[in-house]
Amino acid sequence: MINRIFIETITSEIKKKNSHICVGLDSDYERIPQILKNNSTVEDTIFSFNKAIIDKTHDLSVAYKSNVVFYAGYGIEGLKALQRTNEYIKSNFPQIKTLADCKRSEMKRSAQLTAKELFEEFNFDGFTATPWFGWDTIEPYTIYKGKAVFVLCHDSNPSAYEVQDVKLENEIHLYEYVTNLVCKTWNKTGNILIEAPLTYPKVLSNIYKLSDGNQFFMLAGLGAQGGDIKTLSLFKERKNFIVNASRSIIFASDKEDFAQKARDQVINYNNQIKEIIY
Amino acid sequence: MINRIFIETITSEIKKKNSHICVGLDSDYERIPQILKNNSTVEDTIFSFNKAIIDKTHDLSVAYKSNVVFYAGYGIEGLKALQRTNEYIKSNFPQIKTLADCKRSEMKRSAQLTAKELFEEFNFDGFTATPWFGWDTIEPYTIYKGKAVFVLCHDSNPSAYEVQDVKLENEIHLYEYVTNLVCKTWNKTGNILIEAPLTYPKVLSNIYKLSDGNQFFMLAGLGAQGGDIKTLSLFKERKNFIVNASRSIIFASDKEDFAQKARDQVINYNNQIKEIIY
Repeated sequence: MINRIFIETITSEIKKKNSHICVGLDSDYERIPQILKNNSTVEDTIFSFNKAIIDKTHDLSVAYKSNVVFYAGYGIEGLKALQRTNEYIKSNFPQIKTLADCKRSEMKRSAQLTAKELFEEFNFDGFTATPWFGWDTIEPYTIYKGKAVFVLCHDSNPSAYEVQDVKLENEIHLYEYVTNLVCKTWNKTGNILIEAPLTYPKVLSNIYKLSDGNQFFMLAGLGAQGGDIKTLSLFKERKNFIVNASRSIIFASDKEDFAQKARDQVINYNNQIKEIIY
Repeated sequence: MINRIFIETITSEIKKKNSHICVGLDSDYERIPQILKNNSTVEDTIFSFNKAIIDKTHDLSVAYKSNVVFYAGYGIEGLKALQRTNEYIKSNFPQIKTLADCKRSEMKRSAQLTAKELFEEFNFDGFTATPWFGWDTIEPYTIYKGKAVFVLCHDSNPSAYEVQDVKLENEIHLYEYVTNLVCKTWNKTGNILIEAPLTYPKVLSNIYKLSDGNQFFMLAGLGAQGGDIKTLSLFKERKNFIVNASRSIIFASDKEDFAQKARDQVINYNNQIKEIIY
């Protein structure tokens, strides 16, 4: 079965908006400007913050990615804010992708329920999955039309090297073995995609070389995590990526102008990316 | 810092009850007996089911483990049932451990929020974590008194071999490398523990040999997944484990007698384990 709807629709949105930006809604309640908190519940505060960011960035962005734990950390209230956020995006800007950073690994019935949770209950178009558990924790999602899974071929965190960079008996690194699994075996359908780090340029370059034009990348680590935007020059030819930045966009200001400053930062990133790859 | 409270309290409970059983509350709404569903919400149905199982098994079990997606798959309603379930256990049987099967990997602030979500909002004593991302996604949990993280050194699912069994340049398997990380580097505090599979006896035996008496195991795959209970003979000397069974206990009957049948199955497992290791 071929299921390339996710890639096709996000690619068309990238072209239309001339933007590769995914805004990370890692909307840490503690960092939300005080002005939104007065006389307001946690749920309403987080939702109002996200709505303001979305209203000011939707015309310049192709996806919103939420790390689920920034919501689940505030229990049911936080999760309701997440649900409302994605409902708001899907009702108003249905062509923009909603992505969950949740690093899942489930199989059979628990994979079905993961799809129900993320695609139906929380209105996500895609999510991140860990490769550790193998094909039977990836395969169940190939059948969901228009949905995608981003396999964490190599993560952007400082300790990622500890397991992901070990060398195998045939001299390749573990993350290269996993990238080969994704590109040559797992992604038969076209919706099993790659998450890779801007924070490790050499790793990213190796992953890029192992992949081909049928793949699509979510790049992590721009902004607060220290990834260099110039590394995107790698994608000059294929242009098959989105790049996520969270804190550097949504917390660009801690004052009343936070949404405008978020917009300014997205414009700034978009301009830099245009210079680098167009 | 030493943080062995989790190991010490669960070990004392194992001795007191003469039981190593962890009941898996993978309470799939679709499989809950019809009699509990009449005129009842999803939340109430799942909670009533769990309460009935807990009331009939708490004196014979040392832990309850919930795969979070069986709740999150039903959205906010399902998650409220999970919250009520753990509140019920902690209010009535505080010495029994509540464990989350959720395969997490978060760092820094998102790890703090993971702890807030699982330990505070959902009242868990421990959870499963994936080793893929390295130490900075494990270390943040070492400071939580009485709490534990079970690192998935090798999973019980059929595809687990695909990544976890690759051979490294020094000839050891990846899961052995990870087990060494857990036992020799990560578990300095005493609360970074091991999850390992009954479904791969040779793998389990290798993991056991790499560990020592300072470790503690959660064993997965007994019952519906096909793990052989006789494999537990490995633990004859150290006895430092709990073993989880889910469907074979909670869905032992689909009729009104489901809770009694769950109890019968726990008694059955306990008797078999006594024969094998005592």
